[in-house]
Amino acid sequence: MSSTEVRLSRLLILAQKFNNFYLTGFHKGDIRPFLVEGQQVGLIKSDVLKQLVKYPEVFCIRDCEQTKQGLVELNPAFRDYNERTEQVEKVLRNLRSEGLFPALQGWRDEYFEVKSEHRPLLKMERAATPLFGVRKYGVDINGYVRHPTQGLCIWLQQRSNTKETWPGKWDNMVGGGLSVGFGIKETAIKEAAEEASIPSDLVKNLVSAGCVSFFFESRQGLFPNTEYVFDLELPLDFVPHNADGEVQAFELLPAKECVERVFTPDFKTTSAPVVIDFLIRHGHITADDVVDFTQIVELLHVPLQSLYIYKTRLEQLQKQHQQLPNDDGNCNSGSSTIKPLENGHKKAA
Amino acid sequence: MSSTEVRLSRLLILAQKFNNFYLTGFHKGDIRPFLVEGQQVGLIKSDVLKQLVKYPEVFCIRDCEQTKQGLVELNPAFRDYNERTEQVEKVLRNLRSEGLFPALQGWRDEYFEVKSEHRPLLKMERAATPLFGVRKYGVDINGYVRHPTQGLCIWLQQRSNTKETWPGKWDNMVGGGLSVGFGIKETAIKEAAEEASIPSDLVKNLVSAGCVSFFFESRQGLFPNTEYVFDLELPLDFVPHNADGEVQAFELLPAKECVERVFTPDFKTTSAPVVIDFLIRHGHITADDVVDFTQIVELLHVPLQSLYIYKTRLEQLQKQHQQLPNDDGNCNSGSSTIKPLENGHKKAA
Repeated sequence: MSSTEVRLSRLLILAQKFNNFYLTGFHKGDIRPFLVEGQQVGLIKSDVLKQLVKYPEVFCIRDCEQTKQGLVELNPAFRDYNERTEQVEKVLRNLRSEGLFPALQGWRDEYFEVKSEHRPLLKMERAATPLFGVRKYGVDINGYVRHPTQGLCIWLQQRSNTKETWPGKWDNMVGGGLSVGFGIKETAIKEAAEEASIPSDLVKNLVSAGCVSFFFESRQGLFPNTEYVFDLELPLDFVPHNADGEVQAFELLPAKECVERVFTPDFKTTSAPVVIDFLIRHGHITADDVVDFTQIVELLHVPLQSLYIYKTRLEQLQKQHQQLPNDDGNCNSGSSTIKPLENGHKKAA
Repeated sequence: MSSTEVRLSRLLILAQKFNNFYLTGFHKGDIRPFLVEGQQVGLIKSDVLKQLVKYPEVFCIRDCEQTKQGLVELNPAFRDYNERTEQVEKVLRNLRSEGLFPALQGWRDEYFEVKSEHRPLLKMERAATPLFGVRKYGVDINGYVRHPTQGLCIWLQQRSNTKETWPGKWDNMVGGGLSVGFGIKETAIKEAAEEASIPSDLVKNLVSAGCVSFFFESRQGLFPNTEYVFDLELPLDFVPHNADGEVQAFELLPAKECVERVFTPDFKTTSAPVVIDFLIRHGHITADDVVDFTQIVELLHVPLQSLYIYKTRLEQLQKQHQQLPNDDGNCNSGSSTIKPLENGHKKAA
């Protein structure tokens, strides 16, 4: 069906849009792992690199002897969490005052904890994390209603015009970043109260439903995001209202209209994966309707983890040096089959 | 919690087990794209290659000038779908009579259609597809009950002891491969009737819920599988019974016991992803319980598509030859960031 074709290409193009860095960004210029304590915690583009070289006492910029790869390393001489945090913050405040990076104009005095394998390494101003390509984790709640006549309907929020990021855009009913010291479901419940005034007797029906991962790039920087998704069925008569001033409106949309809204420029690009995942899980986008269904599902779960494994690769290379020649052979044939992975997806026309 | 840690490692080790080829198989020996009409439709291991070289009139084994990669190509002189089908079948019947491949002992006179971008290229005996690493698509139905006292319960089937594959193993309530000429939901409905005698008034509640993709390797060969998953809530008093002799028992298990069953050697390894995905979507495996939750979700949706893109890579290389030198530079930096993708996952201890 040509109508299906149209539907397909719109969904696929959107999935490619919120994965623009995963699909094509790597091919543009010199992208360097960012290491703290020998662990890769980020990816740094050349525009940021150009500024970091001015702070050699904080950032060591070098090539790795084993991987031959260019690296940015936080000075290993820093003793602990607090010293790393202070040293990075000093640089960030400088960069902010120089006004070079749009991201830093959104400075909000809110910390994001940079971890490796669940070990906290430092905390960083939330607005700065896109400059370092630090993996971000958030929660989103799909608030929905089973309407007697209109079927599945979804609550969307319109972000306040005063928000630093995506002002005025349509978004999921509830969403927020994970903050230091809060659990995942705990964060969802907190955000549900702050953003949509959802009372405890309703929020108790919250259902954990998995996560989506994508890698988006914008003027602000890099967004290797994982969103933990929750579904919340709401009674017909419940109307969310905002408590923290971050939302200007809520609207209940039938599933079909919700899909259309997601395609408009008025919808927050990085929230689209959560809605698409919800509509797929609830049978409103199906493999029979959308020819590239499996490709779209792939792009809702991109293997971010495999882009943050400098240390693993280093350990593998070191092992290989100790191993038999035919193991090196294996490794070569391995990497030759690895190469395609980034190229697998057709680009948006 | 150490109890969580145990839970984590069991789930992650299982996810690594049904992705043993995705995570490590590529590193073992010479894996070659299998081309039909210039399109990659499979991946061929060296044990199969050793046999195919004996049929040069059917399989051209060569190196690609542009990619420098070893290839297996179905003779491009074959005129059409029927000629390709007949020529391949002749070879397969020979190989079967030689008794070299366990997979071919499971010959079932059932065809699987080999396609590229939805264009049928040939049909192949279903039992032979693992030798060619052809992507397989199937449907699975999660039959479940909301029990008043036991909560979410899941129907499992025990496969007949006479089945060619995984005899006697526990499996999802309903599952089957996509057959020529059937739609995806249509196949699910057909299998629901044949395997579990689910009447039309119940099967109408079938909900499409997405798909899982993984890449498993066994003695039979390669299984780059995508399973389209459907959920079906069933009434408390419904008991499935088999109609086609392929099932020896059905059992209703509370979610907790179902998880335990999946970890036993009595459960079909390649059906585990469907159950884990179901338990994640329904809030029975959550990010707060399982430290490596995002890694497990990644391994339920591995980017298979990017392993079948010989033609895309060829076109990209050809483009690069026509482009500016700095585009080649980009390509190199690209491929250096592509390499990690296979290595991203810690191996099972």
